[in-house]
Amino acid sequence: MNENYTTQMHAAKQGIITPQMEAVARKEYRLPKEICSLVAEGKVVICANKRHVCLDFNGVGSMLRTKINVNLGVSRDCKDYDAEIKKVMAAVDMGAEAIMDLSSHGDTRVFRRKLTAECQAIIGTVPVYDAVIHYQRDLATLSAKDFIDVIRLHAEDGVDFVTLHCGITRKTIEQLHKKKRKMNIVSRGGSLVFAWMCMTGRENPFYEYYDGILDICREYDVTISLGDACRPGCLADAGDVCQIEELVRLGELTKRAWEKDVQIMVEGPGHMALDQIAANMKIQQNICMGAPFYVLGPLVTDIAPGYDHITSAIGGAIAAAAGAAFLCYVTPAEHLALPNVEDVKQGIIASKIAAHAADIAKHIPHARDIDDRMAEARQKLDWKEQWACAIDPEKANVIRNNRSPEHEDTCSMCGKFCAVRSMNKALSGEYIDIL
Amino acid sequence: MNENYTTQMHAAKQGIITPQMEAVARKEYRLPKEICSLVAEGKVVICANKRHVCLDFNGVGSMLRTKINVNLGVSRDCKDYDAEIKKVMAAVDMGAEAIMDLSSHGDTRVFRRKLTAECQAIIGTVPVYDAVIHYQRDLATLSAKDFIDVIRLHAEDGVDFVTLHCGITRKTIEQLHKKKRKMNIVSRGGSLVFAWMCMTGRENPFYEYYDGILDICREYDVTISLGDACRPGCLADAGDVCQIEELVRLGELTKRAWEKDVQIMVEGPGHMALDQIAANMKIQQNICMGAPFYVLGPLVTDIAPGYDHITSAIGGAIAAAAGAAFLCYVTPAEHLALPNVEDVKQGIIASKIAAHAADIAKHIPHARDIDDRMAEARQKLDWKEQWACAIDPEKANVIRNNRSPEHEDTCSMCGKFCAVRSMNKALSGEYIDIL
Repeated sequence: MNENYTTQMHAAKQGIITPQMEAVARKEYRLPKEICSLVAEGKVVICANKRHVCLDFNGVGSMLRTKINVNLGVSRDCKDYDAEIKKVMAAVDMGAEAIMDLSSHGDTRVFRRKLTAECQAIIGTVPVYDAVIHYQRDLATLSAKDFIDVIRLHAEDGVDFVTLHCGITRKTIEQLHKKKRKMNIVSRGGSLVFAWMCMTGRENPFYEYYDGILDICREYDVTISLGDACRPGCLADAGDVCQIEELVRLGELTKRAWEKDVQIMVEGPGHMALDQIAANMKIQQNICMGAPFYVLGPLVTDIAPGYDHITSAIGGAIAAAAGAAFLCYVTPAEHLALPNVEDVKQGIIASKIAAHAADIAKHIPHARDIDDRMAEARQKLDWKEQWACAIDPEKANVIRNNRSPEHEDTCSMCGKFCAVRSMNKALSGEYIDIL
Repeated sequence: MNENYTTQMHAAKQGIITPQMEAVARKEYRLPKEICSLVAEGKVVICANKRHVCLDFNGVGSMLRTKINVNLGVSRDCKDYDAEIKKVMAAVDMGAEAIMDLSSHGDTRVFRRKLTAECQAIIGTVPVYDAVIHYQRDLATLSAKDFIDVIRLHAEDGVDFVTLHCGITRKTIEQLHKKKRKMNIVSRGGSLVFAWMCMTGRENPFYEYYDGILDICREYDVTISLGDACRPGCLADAGDVCQIEELVRLGELTKRAWEKDVQIMVEGPGHMALDQIAANMKIQQNICMGAPFYVLGPLVTDIAPGYDHITSAIGGAIAAAAGAAFLCYVTPAEHLALPNVEDVKQGIIASKIAAHAADIAKHIPHARDIDDRMAEARQKLDWKEQWACAIDPEKANVIRNNRSPEHEDTCSMCGKFCAVRSMNKALSGEYIDIL
């Protein structure tokens, strides 16, 4: 542990290049000093709690490869720590750079410590969920100090980032009573904070005691992910005054965190029509001075329960291409049920597709290399090499091979009508038999 | 049959409002005279062969609701006409406005006539595929006249639009030999035309005899969908000189068709990085003077075989929001195998999501109504009404009900942590129990 700095941002501001920055630079085809500058400016975060020693370092920022997060955790339906750790490891194997532990059952500390001891992905949590479970007391009975103590507990346990809904205040309560929003607050953590404020009549503890929270985060280098309680929960609420007013507050909180060298990400929508997404990314970047934007979705329509991995892949790709840095996966079970193992897989793949498509669009160095390799393999009808380039080789292979191709070189879709086969023959002057 | 006009465009140019235009106007919340003007200008096509009497009229144009096409047809693997007709009807029930009959086995005329006799969707074909099957002779042995005769056959059979790869010429052959494209031509029809030209040494018959083809199309009011033989088959080939040069030729051919009152759609990419899509739509609209753009994809990455319904939903949504009017569905089996029934369903739903998201983004009248209804149902935790608004009620219902929710009003994802439940209680001053 280097004694000359507390957080990555603290080091960066002094021009100290940390091993974390070096690792990120290598992965991103950048110079360490470039990464150092971006961390100093707050445009890249390296979520790396000092106690999470097995961590594989990754940077999050709009000019880097888009990262994805997978939500998992022990719940009443899935109490088995080992089974859940297996899901976590499978998610990491499929390419998730971060895991948010949303455990809501039993002794959450055991699972959380297991994660930071064994899992190399970035680990995030939402302390306000955990508070109810940790104390086993109902929400209204918890004090502000109880909440802050849970943040400290998570920091001590090696959590790399915490989502905190600091941006809503008593004014938000008034506003939500006055303005008729279709979906009010759909952020789970945000609704808990709101409910606590309603029941106790007190100010938001994450807002009121923000300075104390910053001290904890500075000590362990926990990145704060500023939760957007008022993210739109349907197209009709997107970009309304509730959302934008909270964003303005998140901008102020970003500045205060940076003054204490605490790293910040800002969370974003939500449900949002396709034509509004790029503008939203731009506004967030202005208001929050380039702090990495972490989006859930955005879902570009409300009517596709069962397929929200697709609606969010559309929105996520556009968001990331327009500046979002970090995508929270959305599974087909969103709005309906706890995702099962297959849903988790479908959610991860859809998010990876969105992230990769955006990286190509943003001209992230070497992002398109794998696509070019795939194109060459296709042109040669080299199926083995195609599987090597595929995002899910097993599924691709099964689809092709279960429907026995008429000809070994083509597939059953076109058979002898295969354009690649015809073109390869035509360009080398061969006779083309179709029948 | 009205004797004062041949095609919808011919009527429109004279200011005659046809029953077809009236039907389209009703569906699109427009005035009949607006539709009439758009048809006259070529910005909307109403694909409606005079012999397809059971047709449910739809307009295709960038200012109208985005339409989707589903490819089906009898093949060696699926020879049963009745089974295939059932698939067609299921696709129409799921919301496909058009069916392209790509039959490649047996007496294709029987199935084609069955389609135009029984199916109310727009029917399209690719005569160059059918030529080989129809004559049961190998490609090189067919004459230009043989190809033209097949177009006439399809027109007589009531086909509403035909894809013709008129835009490649002998110059294209030179160009493809010179320029190193990664994937050459991946359009199946385009590759057949190219192969025929290579083997016979002749000019493209669909280009050489274009005037004769226009006469046939004018007689029956068959819309020509100008195929893009050089559409990019991988990201690396997108927007290259082959693609754009062909587009310029398609612009010229559009003008010639309009002079004979023949309706035109123009086909487009293909594989294309996300950041290039909007620009491509703009260029196409300029070069082809606003003729409706019919896109296959675009697929925003090459590496996702097995998931290309998702890669194309991303590209399709962006394309349609930027001006494309008509999306060809892409199934998870694309690049791998002939799609099975489940693939067809997945492909249709992904395309419908893309089309709907684009319609909302384009502010098509009333496009968002169903989303607003869904939001209201969610806010009330009214699950029955949510299913009524869902794109696939059955799937949504199964996901929720197979994972028995802890509480009747919420779902198993959040249980008592449900944000909607917390907010409804908080805003009405109730106590919120979480444990």
